[in-house]
Amino acid sequence: MDYQFSSGISSLRPSAIREILKNSGDSIPLSAGNPAPDAFPVSDVQRIANQVLEEEPILALQYGITEGYAPLINEITNIAHSRYGVGSDNDGVIVVSGAQQVMSLLSHVFVNNGDTIICEEPAFIGALNCFRAFGAKLVGVPVEGDGMNVDVLEEKLKSEKNVRFIYTIPNFQNPAGATMSLEKRKRVYELAKKYGVLVLEDNPYGDLRVSGEDLPAIKSFDTEGLVVYSGSFSKIIAPGIRIGFTVAPKEIIAKMTVAKQTQDVHTPMLTQLIVYRWLKEGNLDPHIEKIRGIYRRKLNLMCDTMDEYLTDYLTFLRPEGGLFVWAEMNEGIDMLSFVKNASANGVSVVPGNAFLTDGSAPCDYIRLNFSTPSDEDIVKGIKLLAQTAKEMR
Amino acid sequence: MDYQFSSGISSLRPSAIREILKNSGDSIPLSAGNPAPDAFPVSDVQRIANQVLEEEPILALQYGITEGYAPLINEITNIAHSRYGVGSDNDGVIVVSGAQQVMSLLSHVFVNNGDTIICEEPAFIGALNCFRAFGAKLVGVPVEGDGMNVDVLEEKLKSEKNVRFIYTIPNFQNPAGATMSLEKRKRVYELAKKYGVLVLEDNPYGDLRVSGEDLPAIKSFDTEGLVVYSGSFSKIIAPGIRIGFTVAPKEIIAKMTVAKQTQDVHTPMLTQLIVYRWLKEGNLDPHIEKIRGIYRRKLNLMCDTMDEYLTDYLTFLRPEGGLFVWAEMNEGIDMLSFVKNASANGVSVVPGNAFLTDGSAPCDYIRLNFSTPSDEDIVKGIKLLAQTAKEMR
Repeated sequence: MDYQFSSGISSLRPSAIREILKNSGDSIPLSAGNPAPDAFPVSDVQRIANQVLEEEPILALQYGITEGYAPLINEITNIAHSRYGVGSDNDGVIVVSGAQQVMSLLSHVFVNNGDTIICEEPAFIGALNCFRAFGAKLVGVPVEGDGMNVDVLEEKLKSEKNVRFIYTIPNFQNPAGATMSLEKRKRVYELAKKYGVLVLEDNPYGDLRVSGEDLPAIKSFDTEGLVVYSGSFSKIIAPGIRIGFTVAPKEIIAKMTVAKQTQDVHTPMLTQLIVYRWLKEGNLDPHIEKIRGIYRRKLNLMCDTMDEYLTDYLTFLRPEGGLFVWAEMNEGIDMLSFVKNASANGVSVVPGNAFLTDGSAPCDYIRLNFSTPSDEDIVKGIKLLAQTAKEMR
Repeated sequence: MDYQFSSGISSLRPSAIREILKNSGDSIPLSAGNPAPDAFPVSDVQRIANQVLEEEPILALQYGITEGYAPLINEITNIAHSRYGVGSDNDGVIVVSGAQQVMSLLSHVFVNNGDTIICEEPAFIGALNCFRAFGAKLVGVPVEGDGMNVDVLEEKLKSEKNVRFIYTIPNFQNPAGATMSLEKRKRVYELAKKYGVLVLEDNPYGDLRVSGEDLPAIKSFDTEGLVVYSGSFSKIIAPGIRIGFTVAPKEIIAKMTVAKQTQDVHTPMLTQLIVYRWLKEGNLDPHIEKIRGIYRRKLNLMCDTMDEYLTDYLTFLRPEGGLFVWAEMNEGIDMLSFVKNASANGVSVVPGNAFLTDGSAPCDYIRLNFSTPSDEDIVKGIKLLAQTAKEMR
């Protein structure tokens, strides 16, 4: 049969990343985005999973409510307030099946086919594809060293029609590694207010700061019910458990709950109960301290090695946290050829155009990840990139 | 702020069920749809969860691929073929976060705002709301004792525009309890072929047969790539783990995978690994035998008690399996008043209009569930319904 797919899904093109990295199975994966496995609290999860299934197996196995396990919602509400300064009496919290679901639910709730979403340029590919799947028109705003260009943002807010929300990762942005300055955070909120547009503030990496000072969330300025905050336990506990949350105005939470019910009814109870007990035991703060050490070591190892071997070939800003380094190839080295040659040499990185609203636009950037590979492979991988660049000169 | 929600989400009205059952907190829940907790393989899950987290913790906690854990997909492919007779070389399988996600993914992949989905009338409310959320026009086809009226189905296929798929639960339909005859299954497939329309065959209850003979799935006739089969472990293992699957033409599977990536990236690894090992150990067949005994006892207890106390007030067909009994109030008893009075008397049932494509249409039916309440509460609940009906005469 000749299938006629929906317009939103038809707009998704096959991933350029997948094509380029298809044959990179055995290479050093500087292209990945997985959190460091030695940062997972494995023995905690073992112990707690055992307790949950011994002490409340039926709760762990029976249907739960769509919003999430109520005591977990309470824990998250408290943490969101005390740790991130987000959430007011006007807001509610729901548990989601990984923070990706926040993007999907918010799109489902607000986006009609053809509506506009303003994104950072470059932006997280999983967000771009999610918005495309709901038929959104994507409008990019360049990311600078201190976050998105707010003057361009205002231009777009003036000129674009039916803008439903602004999507941003203010901390250690994926892929650009940039952290938005306090001044720009305030400006983004003021512009959202001025133009009556929502903000989706995605903060999957905020706790992985390895240098500098924490900055307030955009949501912390939200007196008007304009900001939807998305948080994740993927980089704090582990991604395979798929637990995230959102803090958003109650009226929006109600609609997102309805949308979630149509997607997956509720997030699995077992994994919710594990996260609940882990938080309740007070593990969050000491664990974050511990894993910041791991990420600090890996980030610095990659950047130091890049400083040693790659400065003739590319330029980058050292990020203050997160998982990624965003590097611009120096003139004379074609980015796409470099990525292909590097893959042939045994190291994979992601071509930057994968993160653009228009993937066919010219782009000189690559994204490197330091959390997935071992320390040894980070060094090996960077040396292979240097060798590749040298061969191309 | 004055939020402008998407047209699909705006079309969802607040649940009539919730309103009516709001104050039924302490009443006997003949309104529920939870599987029987004594049918959960609790000690298996305890033991296997422990093994998984001891033996392969990183696999259980790290990101997985969107399609699902490959060995689980293999197990499911084999079971789908051997047990349900579904799946050909033209088909693929993916693991989903509960069978509800199949409806959501298929809608996402095929439905543009205003397209038509043909549903059984009455139909599962979670499906109707999912389709509504994607802006679908719902067209109902009456369910008879032996499944949907196929003549009306053909009329609708002739007269309706942009029909994307036919949604059916052929076994022990929710809420009507009806099982589609073999003849009608063949006819539905032939009509799908004739009119070039897909079929979404949802089979969450098929293993819970307590009398009669298993019938072939519609998917088992699928030589043309027209049928998307949806299966669930919610009623076999437990619903709180949120593991379902779909067997569908590979081209559709590819698009559903893309859509799933935008919704939740992948289904949690821990719960996938638990289900994988449980299946691999060969627990499926003996466990189904065991739980059929539990469901047979509860179904017969409810129907026998209804025969004893309720025949003056309502009429029903004894289902051959599933979780529900669908009963029509006899003339002279207003259905909605009966449901409200029953709730006041301490027993809750669901008003049938909740399951209609047009919830405001007249309806004389109620849905009763026998899997959630204890055996004692089943008897008490039916007696309270009889008392309620008597008071109304």
